Amino acid sequence: MEMRLDNKQFEKIIENIKFNDQGLVPVIIQDYKTDKVLMLAYMNKEAFLKTLSTKKTHFYSRSRKKLWMKGEQSGNIQKVKDIYIDCDNDCILIKVNQIGKAACHTGYESCFFRKITKNFDFKIVDKKIFDPQKVYK
Amino acid sequence: MEMRLDNKQFEKIIENIKFNDQGLVPVIIQDYKTDKVLMLAYMNKEAFLKTLSTKKTHFYSRSRKKLWMKGEQSGNIQKVKDIYIDCDNDCILIKVNQIGKAACHTGYESCFFRKITKNFDFKIVDKKIFDPQKVYK
Repeated sequence: MEMRLDNKQFEKIIENIKFNDQGLVPVIIQDYKTDKVLMLAYMNKEAFLKTLSTKKTHFYSRSRKKLWMKGEQSGNIQKVKDIYIDCDNDCILIKVNQIGKAACHTGYESCFFRKITKNFDFKIVDKKIFDPQKVYK
Repeated sequence: MEMRLDNKQFEKIIENIKFNDQGLVPVIIQDYKTDKVLMLAYMNKEAFLKTLSTKKTHFYSRSRKKLWMKGEQSGNIQKVKDIYIDCDNDCILIKVNQIGKAACHTGYESCFFRKITKNFDFKIVDKKIFDPQKVYK
């Protein structure tokens, strides 16, 4: 069910967000129960409007140059719980209910599944939830 | 005390990070105890090296066009606990011990101190820790 959101309400929010020179704003996605940071992605105005109206996260892919709904292929959608904006109005934080427990396209719970060790190596520290080869065809 | 970090070790990490066309990478800062997201800022290679070697966060200010250490004026430095990198190598997450309990220059604990309400207003939901007029002169 899409939320009713008239142009005036949307303009009121949009005018307070500083989109960069590519028309994008970075968005941090955090699990609403555990506060684990799941990913960072970018929204343009359309993606932000879609996110507000559907209550499911939508982003703008810089590589594919198109709008996408998180989970459109995997089914691992993100239901929006709370939206925050930072002091400079140039970053957004969204707490979500991550369906399927995994946010990352690699199958890990979080995109930040590697830690930099004391020896300056990358070590996998997160749980693998699904096999991407079975999910993305 | 600065950490010993030779050029080879640093190059090994740096070559795995995708800096954008401005030479920057977005960095999410999270409290290591509570997992609260405190801020998002940007690092260039120099800021990242300084952060690794001193174990205190350093950023590149896009507005002032210079390197800065978080807390250099306020004393509210961030001691680095853990560093993570995302699947695309284009975003970093750092868990920190936030000295002085406040990360935001406005005096709030987090830069994300405003929530977007159901009526599409911004509501302050965070604690104010200090008065910025007394801290920044």
